[in-house]
This record gives sequence, C-alpha cells and structure tokens, in this order.
Amino acid sequence: MTLLVKTCSVKEVAEFVQARVLGDETVQLAGIASVESAAPGDLIFVDDEKNLPRVLESRASAVIGGDFAAGKTNSKPLLIATQPRLAFARAARFLCPRPEWKPGIHPSAVVHPSARLANDATVEERVVIGEHVHIGESTRIGAGSVIGAKVSIGRDCDLYPNVTVYPGVLLGDHVIVHSGAVLGSDGFGYVRDPATGRYEKFPQVGRLEIEDDVEIGANTTIDRGALDATRIGRGAKIDNLVHIGHNCQIGEDVVIAAQTGLSGSITIEKGVILGGQVGIGEHARIEEGVMLGGQGGVLPNKVLRGKGIAFWGTPAKPVREYLKELATLARLAKKQ
Amino acid sequence: MTLLVKTCSVKEVAEFVQARVLGDETVQLAGIASVESAAPGDLIFVDDEKNLPRVLESRASAVIGGDFAAGKTNSKPLLIATQPRLAFARAARFLCPRPEWKPGIHPSAVVHPSARLANDATVEERVVIGEHVHIGESTRIGAGSVIGAKVSIGRDCDLYPNVTVYPGVLLGDHVIVHSGAVLGSDGFGYVRDPATGRYEKFPQVGRLEIEDDVEIGANTTIDRGALDATRIGRGAKIDNLVHIGHNCQIGEDVVIAAQTGLSGSITIEKGVILGGQVGIGEHARIEEGVMLGGQGGVLPNKVLRGKGIAFWGTPAKPVREYLKELATLARLAKKQ
Amino acid sequence: MTLLVKTCSVKEVAEFVQARVLGDETVQLAGIASVESAAPGDLIFVDDEKNLPRVLESRASAVIGGDFAAGKTNSKPLLIATQPRLAFARAARFLCPRPEWKPGIHPSAVVHPSARLANDATVEERVVIGEHVHIGESTRIGAGSVIGAKVSIGRDCDLYPNVTVYPGVLLGDHVIVHSGAVLGSDGFGYVRDPATGRYEKFPQVGRLEIEDDVEIGANTTIDRGALDATRIGRGAKIDNLVHIGHNCQIGEDVVIAAQTGLSGSITIEKGVILGGQVGIGEHARIEEGVMLGGQGGVLPNKVLRGKGIAFWGTPAKPVREYLKELATLARLAKKQ
Repeated sequence: MTLLVKTCSVKEVAEFVQARVLGDETVQLAGIASVESAAPGDLIFVDDEKNLPRVLESRASAVIGGDFAAGKTNSKPLLIATQPRLAFARAARFLCPRPEWKPGIHPSAVVHPSARLANDATVEERVVIGEHVHIGESTRIGAGSVIGAKVSIGRDCDLYPNVTVYPGVLLGDHVIVHSGAVLGSDGFGYVRDPATGRYEKFPQVGRLEIEDDVEIGANTTIDRGALDATRIGRGAKIDNLVHIGHNCQIGEDVVIAAQTGLSGSITIEKGVILGGQVGIGEHARIEEGVMLGGQGGVLPNKVLRGKGIAFWGTPAKPVREYLKELATLARLAKKQ
Repeated sequence: MTLLVKTCSVKEVAEFVQARVLGDETVQLAGIASVESAAPGDLIFVDDEKNLPRVLESRASAVIGGDFAAGKTNSKPLLIATQPRLAFARAARFLCPRPEWKPGIHPSAVVHPSARLANDATVEERVVIGEHVHIGESTRIGAGSVIGAKVSIGRDCDLYPNVTVYPGVLLGDHVIVHSGAVLGSDGFGYVRDPATGRYEKFPQVGRLEIEDDVEIGANTTIDRGALDATRIGRGAKIDNLVHIGHNCQIGEDVVIAAQTGLSGSITIEKGVILGGQVGIGEHARIEEGVMLGGQGGVLPNKVLRGKGIAFWGTPAKPVREYLKELATLARLAKKQ
Repeated sequence: MTLLVKTCSVKEVAEFVQARVLGDETVQLAGIASVESAAPGDLIFVDDEKNLPRVLESRASAVIGGDFAAGKTNSKPLLIATQPRLAFARAARFLCPRPEWKPGIHPSAVVHPSARLANDATVEERVVIGEHVHIGESTRIGAGSVIGAKVSIGRDCDLYPNVTVYPGVLLGDHVIVHSGAVLGSDGFGYVRDPATGRYEKFPQVGRLEIEDDVEIGANTTIDRGALDATRIGRGAKIDNLVHIGHNCQIGEDVVIAAQTGLSGSITIEKGVILGGQVGIGEHARIEEGVMLGGQGGVLPNKVLRGKGIAFWGTPAKPVREYLKELATLARLAKKQ
C-alpha cells in the first residue's frame, strides 16, 4: 500500500475522476494498492471482468471498475468509470504524495551567475549548472546532475539525480528525465580517410530538442544532431537504456520500450509503439500508428507503413506473415 | 600479475582453500596470474587436463589443479583441490589486497542529519545521502553516488562511484553495485486516454528489494514496482547494462548476462541462467534451473520449464529443436 | 547553422583542406550547415552527384564537392576535393569553436594531493581525482567525473561530465569519453560451488588499457580484465550503450555501433565494423576487416574471417547466404 497524502472519501475521489458511485460514498480511503496486496483503507481497480470476483473478495475498501461491474451486489463501494485503469491512474496522481522538493538552490550546487532560474525551481545537492542556462518554474534538478551551457529547461520538469545534459539542449515543459540519462551527446559519425584507414570525426554540432510531456528512462542516451536537430515529440515515452542516434525525429505520443536502439536520421511518426530491444537502421521511417514487436529489426532506408499494423522479426514483416514463416519452419524441421 | 597483500607460503594457501600439497609447501607466493602472464612468485590454476602441460611449463611458482594433476611429476608445488577454479577464486579473495577505503564521511559529502550510518561505513567524496537513510557496518558508498530518502543498505556492501538509488529502496548485506547503476527508477507504465490519444502515467510507487549477496553491473537499471515490489533474490548476479522492469521477481542464484532486458511482472526462478541480450515479455515465467541462450526472446505470458534445459531463439525453444530448424533452413536454402 | 569561431574566406578553407577552388575565392564563410538548413554564409558539402542540383540551389555560400561537381557552371564557389565529406569534416574541426574550457582545477573538485596534473589540464566542478592519478596536457575532466586511484590519462583527452574511471585504468592521448561511460568495472565472472549452488566471485583484478584516438560513447561500459588486460586499440570508435567484457582485445580502427555487446575474451581484429545490437560469445574471434550486420550474433569460440566480407544473422553467416535463407523461408511460407 502506498499512503495517500491525506485520507479522503470515496465521494471526493469519484468527483475527481468523474466516476459514479454505487454503494457507500462516505467510506474513507487512505491508500492505493494492487489487488494482491490491498488492505482495508485501500483503493484498487479492475478493468477485466474475469478478475471481478477476486477484486470484490479482496480486503480493499473501494474499487474503481468498468460498466461490467455495475450490476454486482457488493459490500464495497464501486466507482464506475468508462476507463477504470485511467481513472485509477488519475486518482493516484492526485492523491499520492509528491516527493517533497525544497525550492531553492542547495549550497553545495555550483550555479553559473549568468544562469536564470525560476524562484521556485529546486536545485539539489552538488548540481552543476553552466552559463546562460534557463530553468523554468517548479522544475527540479536532481542531485549530481550536470546541466551544460545554454541549456533551456521548461516548467514543471523533473530531472532525477545524476542526469547529464550537454550544452545547448532544449527541454519543454513537464518533461521527466530519469537518473543516468544522457541528453545531447555527440552522434556516431566518422569519415574514413582512405589514405590512412583512420576515422576522422564528422562534426556533431547540431541540437537536441525535447518537447513537452516527454518521459525519458534511466540510462537512456539521446544524441544531438550532426548539423541539424534531433527531435523528441510531445508526449513521447521512452523507457530505460534506449539509444536514439543523431538527427532522429520522434513523433508525438510515440512509445519506445527498453533497450531499443535507433541509429541516425530515422523518422518515427506519431503514435508508433516500439517494443523492447528493437533495432532500426539509418534513414528508416516508421509511419503513423505502426507497432513493432520486441527484438524486431528494420533495415536502413526501409519504410514500415499501416496504422495499427503490427510488425515483427528481422527484417520486420507484418506479424501474421512472420508467424506463418515461423510455423512453416517448425513444421519442415519436424519432418526431417 | 596482481600482487598479494603479503607473501605467503604454499602451505598457508593450501590450508585456506583446503587443498593437499604435492611438492615443496614452503615455496613463497607473491601474486596471482593467468597462465599466459605468470611470473615467478605467482599462483595459477588449471581445471582442464589438456592445459596441464602448458601450465607446468609456465613460469608460475605454484599451481592449483584437479585430481587429474596429482600423478604428474613436476618441479612446482601442486595444490590439489576438487574444484580448482573455485579454490583459486577463494585464494584470490583471501590474498588480494582489498581497496583501501577510509571509514568515515568525507567532508565533501552531503549527509542528511537524520541518516543513520554505521561507525565504520565509508562515505566517499561528494556523496549525497537523503533523509532517514540507513547504512550498515563496513559498507562503502562510492564517490558521487546519490542515495535517496529512506533507503536502507545492509552491512559489507560496496557501491562504486556514481550509483543512484531512488528513495525507499532496500539492499541486503554483501551487495555489490557497480558504477552508473540506477536502482528503483520508475517502471514504464502508462494508460492511453482514448479521447486524446495521449499517455498518462500509471502510478509507479512500489518498492525495490535487493537481497543479500547480489552483484549488479555497471549502468544496469532496475525499476521499482508499480504498486507492489520488484525483488532480486539472494545471490543473483546481474551483468552490465541489464534492464529489469517493474514488479519482476528474480530468484536466488540467478545469473543474468549483459544487456538482457526483462519487461514487467516477470518471474525468474531460482538458478536460472540468462545469456546476454535476452529479451523477455511481460508476465512470462522462467522456471527453476532453465538456461536461455544469448539474444533469445520469450513472449509475454509464456512459461519456460525444465531444470537444466537450454532454450534458444525467438520465440525461445529447446535448443536442440531450434538447432534442427536452423539446419533445416540452411539445407533448404542450399537446394534452391 | 553552427557559427564558426571567426569568418574566413573560401580561399583559407580551401588551403586548409587542400581543395581547389572554382569561382570566387574571396567569398566569406561564417558557418557550416546541412543542405536542408543552409543559409547565406554557410559552407556545405556534397558527396553524391545525384544531390548536386539540390546543393547548388541551396542558400549556402560555398560547397565542397567531388570531381563530379567540377564541370557545373554555378554562381557559388566550389571547393573540389577527392573526398568531399572528409574535407568538410576537417574544415568543420578547424573552423568550429571548441568548447571553452578553463584550464585549472575548479575549487569544488576534490583532487588527491598525490595526483599529478598538467598545468593546462581542466578539472571541472565536483570532479573527484584519486591517489597517484596522472592527467596529461590540455586534457579536460568533465564535471562530476570520478577518476580512481592510479589512473593515467594522456594529453588532449576529453572526458565529458559524469564519467567513471575505476582504479588503475590507462588512457592514451586524444581519447574522448562521453557522459555516463564506465571504464574498468569488474568483469562478470563467478565460480559455482557445487556443494551450495552459490556463485563466488572470480577475481577481476586485471587492467584496462585504452590507446590513442579512441572515442567511447555515452553510458558504454568496458570491464577490466580478470587477471590480464582488456585492450581497446588505437583509433577504435565505440558508440553509446556498448558493453565490452573482460579480457576483450579490440583492434585498431574498429567501429562498434550502439548497444552491441561483447562477452569475455573476444578478439576483434583491426578494421572490423560491428553494427548495432550485435552480440558476440566468449572467446570468439572476428578477423581483420570483417563487417557484421546489426543484431547479428556470434557463438562462443567461433571465428569470422574475410576482409571486406559482411556477415549477418544469428548465428552469423555471410550475408548472401543468410539472405538466401530468408528468401527461401518466405517462399516456402507463401506456398502453405
């Protein structure tokens, strides 16, 4: 159970998440929990009818459920919502205590005098902030983070401890960056000198722009553009240990699971979902609404197309086609 | 060669590792080495009979070997042990100098006054320790590490520099954490609002519990549970750049090689061995003693079963079956 | 556009990169850019004849091109070079402003009195430098980095913020290390005690040696040798989130793309190119000049051979053979 900031009634929660209450709306709630660990005082949720009996037998004090739960007689109050999981997420965000940041600059931080920080920004222990940095209202920079010169970070952002932001990177509002993430590192670009066989560095002097509402996982790395910009669109959610190469353009509301790697100059359009450990070659384009299964691979310059179509395998194919290949091979091998 | 803390005799080493000596037990040892780089004064080992001639011809001063070495006439002292590699590892741990930590809190560290630290704990340069943290006896917190509020770390742990531990994480005793590891970051969970197409954050307010004798590699990330706990069982060994998602349950003595990724709510039972770059889908279960080869993939909700059985491929199959498929395909392609 | 340190004439640039000028060599240049974003004052390049019309129509003030561009009448000055991309890279390196480091030790850094630092080395905010460290001329240690005891770093190196270097690691000259990289962590080696089923740590007390001109990407991890050394050869270029295990020997001018993982004791010979997310098993050897495609896998102890030969798949095969297998399977599946 995670304790709420203060107890509140079922009625208060229902009003916040716009659910209708069946049962006693004066019941007091003190925490949120999963079904398995629910204790008296907890709010839980159910979004699959087949789990309803277990949920109703749990020790929780109230349940957010879908319309399917409305007909059930029950001793607990039910909060009926169209999207029970979404309603639960919103209730949790509203009710759970936010970490207690102390606005202001910790004396152990090193902040360049030219930096402009909002009055209620939080700069934790041992942070380093470079020249001409701008940090917006209510933003937190976690302990040990290093913010390079001319970086601009919007309002209401949360950078966890030990984040590194290279010079010149732009972050919008409400951006969350988890520990160990590196934003704006040099792209991987070299030119081989045929006379010597040695590689010389191609300039990596472009920008990195991260729009509002993006979340970036722990130890993820996003490279700046070579000459132009790498862009992460509004609302993109990026898991841990992801690599995004120089000049990639990530669309709005894109989801990228852990350990996926994008080499350079890739376009990921709006609403695409990439599973974990996916690898995509340079200049490929994944068009709007495509889904790509875990460990899938896309060759350089390829285009995947089809809203709601799932692809899988390396090289990635429509999942039905790929499964047919897997089944064919299994059958042929059995015959041998 | 790595120098020992002090020279010691073959007899002393043999007693420590419970080996019997053939030859001169008064020979003095000053270091450990590989066969290739051994110099006079070095202790080496051999666990494969076919390497024995090379070992005996080396410049090392003494050899730990298996029973197969007992019959060989030799000018060097032999330490005969049932498990020569294990005996060598133990000798090394006993004899090699441990890094010299200086117990106490470096003046550049920022330690919250409510934190309780054992007297002989070592808190290095620029460490940040939050409210109500507990750190046990003989534990070292490496330079630049950030330990969040209410974290509890047991005794005899070694956190290398620049580790980040999120608030509330629990570590047992004898836990080793390498640099750049992030423990307790938010899991990757969102709910899409069908009205707007945007993702909202599902609460990631659970715990992370790491039991005794666990080792965690550099830049590995382990997420806290969403509502409940992520657990890493006693003695689990986790390599570099591994990702472990929210609510995973890792059993005792599990081995996970580099760059493997586990999405959410996965169970890895006792004694499982996962190769490098393995990817496992949510809610899968890998049962006791299973081995899974490098780059293997397991679909969500799948169960792999069979103590000592090796699986490989994506989707993972028993290795014999998978190899047969690979051979079948190669044969068919040659016929074309 | 990225501004140059100062404007300069086409003639000056042409002399530096040894190009011959067609057109007005007095035109002044103020920046470098891509074709897409070029503005007046910018220098751009073209290395593919089919892009020439677009380049000539761009707003750039001058173009570096190959011999194919020589015959074109044009209003802009052309700098004709045998290797236009290489000439552009060199021009950029010469002309772009280098980050302004301030030689000297920032007062917030903690430097052990026994460390020897060149007078013009730059040690940024909150760096920690251990006992007996040596740092060469013109080298920068970025903010928050931790340099362990007895580390030696050559001249003209650039360690970005929050890098961790374990004790005893050697870096040559002109080495670039990006943020979050961990150099010299323990290898992943254990011995199972058959009596208890528990794993005991095999000694990881070897060295890590990194030669001149190596570049190491963000959050990459390179383990020290177990008893001997891990070596990264001169001029090797290693991308983000790469894992290199203990005792690996990486040859000169090797290129390793992001998220590739090498387990222990692997030899990668001179000039090899490894794509992203490649995985290689222990004791494998990739011989000189081999190329291995993204997500390819190599089994332990395997040898890949053939200068200029491309391999792909898991287990990796010559790419032509592998493509034939993929095509065969697709054809057979369609027949079902």
